[in-house]
Amino acid sequence: MSEFQKVVLSREITGVPVAQDFAIEAMARPEIAEGELLVKNAFLSLDPYIGSRLKGRHMSGPAPKIGELIPGLAVGEVLESRAAGFAPGDHVVGESGWRTHCVMDAAAAQKVDAAIQPLSLHLGVCGMPGLTAWASAHHLAKVREGDRVLVSSATGPVGGTVGQLARIKGATKVVGLAGSDTKCRTVEREYGFDLCINYKDADWTDQLAAALPDGITVYHDNVGGDVLDAALANLADYGRVILCGLISQYNLPEGERPAGPNPGVYILKRAQLSGLVVYDYMAEQADYAARAFEWIESGDLRYVEDRAEGLAATPELFAKLMHGDNVGKTVVALGNG
Amino acid sequence: MSEFQKVVLSREITGVPVAQDFAIEAMARPEIAEGELLVKNAFLSLDPYIGSRLKGRHMSGPAPKIGELIPGLAVGEVLESRAAGFAPGDHVVGESGWRTHCVMDAAAAQKVDAAIQPLSLHLGVCGMPGLTAWASAHHLAKVREGDRVLVSSATGPVGGTVGQLARIKGATKVVGLAGSDTKCRTVEREYGFDLCINYKDADWTDQLAAALPDGITVYHDNVGGDVLDAALANLADYGRVILCGLISQYNLPEGERPAGPNPGVYILKRAQLSGLVVYDYMAEQADYAARAFEWIESGDLRYVEDRAEGLAATPELFAKLMHGDNVGKTVVALGNG
Repeated sequence: MSEFQKVVLSREITGVPVAQDFAIEAMARPEIAEGELLVKNAFLSLDPYIGSRLKGRHMSGPAPKIGELIPGLAVGEVLESRAAGFAPGDHVVGESGWRTHCVMDAAAAQKVDAAIQPLSLHLGVCGMPGLTAWASAHHLAKVREGDRVLVSSATGPVGGTVGQLARIKGATKVVGLAGSDTKCRTVEREYGFDLCINYKDADWTDQLAAALPDGITVYHDNVGGDVLDAALANLADYGRVILCGLISQYNLPEGERPAGPNPGVYILKRAQLSGLVVYDYMAEQADYAARAFEWIESGDLRYVEDRAEGLAATPELFAKLMHGDNVGKTVVALGNG
Repeated sequence: MSEFQKVVLSREITGVPVAQDFAIEAMARPEIAEGELLVKNAFLSLDPYIGSRLKGRHMSGPAPKIGELIPGLAVGEVLESRAAGFAPGDHVVGESGWRTHCVMDAAAAQKVDAAIQPLSLHLGVCGMPGLTAWASAHHLAKVREGDRVLVSSATGPVGGTVGQLARIKGATKVVGLAGSDTKCRTVEREYGFDLCINYKDADWTDQLAAALPDGITVYHDNVGGDVLDAALANLADYGRVILCGLISQYNLPEGERPAGPNPGVYILKRAQLSGLVVYDYMAEQADYAARAFEWIESGDLRYVEDRAEGLAATPELFAKLMHGDNVGKTVVALGNG
């Protein structure tokens, strides 16, 4: 097949996405117009929100139709530029879709420091997931010494980083939630959380209450649903809750938007809730990436990748992510990073 | 009947309370023990939370049984004291129940400034409802110049005061919600809100969107339910929402706790929510009362009372409150304030 390839939607998705919902196709070498860049991708980012996007319910844009490119971020090298401020050899992150090469709107492309290696870091702990974690722990929760922090989806690049940033900022105790014992081991051993609880254990809410007997002072929620309810039940008075994602809803049938907690629990706990949308913090991306890379080099911040090689591996890897079987940041390496 | 009287529960309450759920009884002159005060009440406070308390679901305490005194705050004059720091002639606010005289635990009694007149102010705009409004507008919402404020239950002493305090603190626009045109007129003419919308109008959500086209920056919620949903739909990004009461739930059958909004709306709006429990601010009560009375005297803060005379009028007045037919702070005058 051609050097230029893409992943398209091959059929309507019903339920949780599987590899057969996607197809690999050859494509022509893209032509660029004024204000655009031709980028050779090094890594594709596979993210839970794409599951929501494929069903037409994510603020990042509409769902692709059958035969259309699957959206998603990538990091790569500029091959051609018709935009001021970008030159061949620059590295950029931006909306590419799942393909080997892309045309990127320069106005929406973000130049990144190629000294931060591997380049996949720009999609994970130094990229938007890391910035999300920074917005949560630093800007919204304002984690400080003595905090007792709970993080859901703790294996992922957002949750794993929130817990580590909380520790850097002085949290006394950091507890994670994840969906398997394997994931929990990663959270404890790699990310250094004090404890990670498998929320599929029958007694997980008892484990949670026992782990944080004085109450949770900061809860980072990627999930919603029952996990949010349990966190609220164990919240300390004036606990800060950062609402960041709703993974529990991503695979629900179209139109089903389950209700949330009765506001009475927020009142009773004097809860302080903040909704988080990472797009609001993009101006800080480069500064944050530099800082995060220092922490990585000093060993204070660790990351785990679930990496596959080659565009053809993308559908299978995405299905694994959607089924919750991934550990860490999910990326596809295209052989030139 | 004796000079000493009380109101008791006469039968089990089903649905919205009515006057026949209560009875007036004579009582003996109370004897006080060490640490207690005998207080001759001047005004009783009738409050929506008592509706919740009567059904056993308010944090202030258990429901009374049949034949037992109905709980509630009162303001009155100390007749006898067996507690250090209190003397006959002092005026106090505290838990009394609905009766002409009460035994008050001095540790829970709050001495008030009798120069603040009428004494019923200590139950309304200078008392706990006013302090609730202060906690909302000042401490939690931190209302500032340019804010566009929405207040539910705007006729009541909490909502009416939140809107006026917001104006004092520089809000650009203050909009109320109330349940009748009569109430709305009071909110506009007496409290000086820019506008009050009758949430029983069929098109009230359209009126709301038209009144605050740039979005609500501060919403004080006394209600929950559909009103909260509509406020969130019109919230500006980063809007502050103060969750203070759930009047829409007070009369629901036991055990029914309706769900709340899906957290997705909080995320989308980057909402900043705070649960408010006024008990946390009691240390500020006296300072706040002095400040509020200055604003009353300068004409910056106005109040409306729904007042009945004599203990015998209490059941009927409470039923009126529970049916939402009251306007302003509901008090019973006992003829000595």
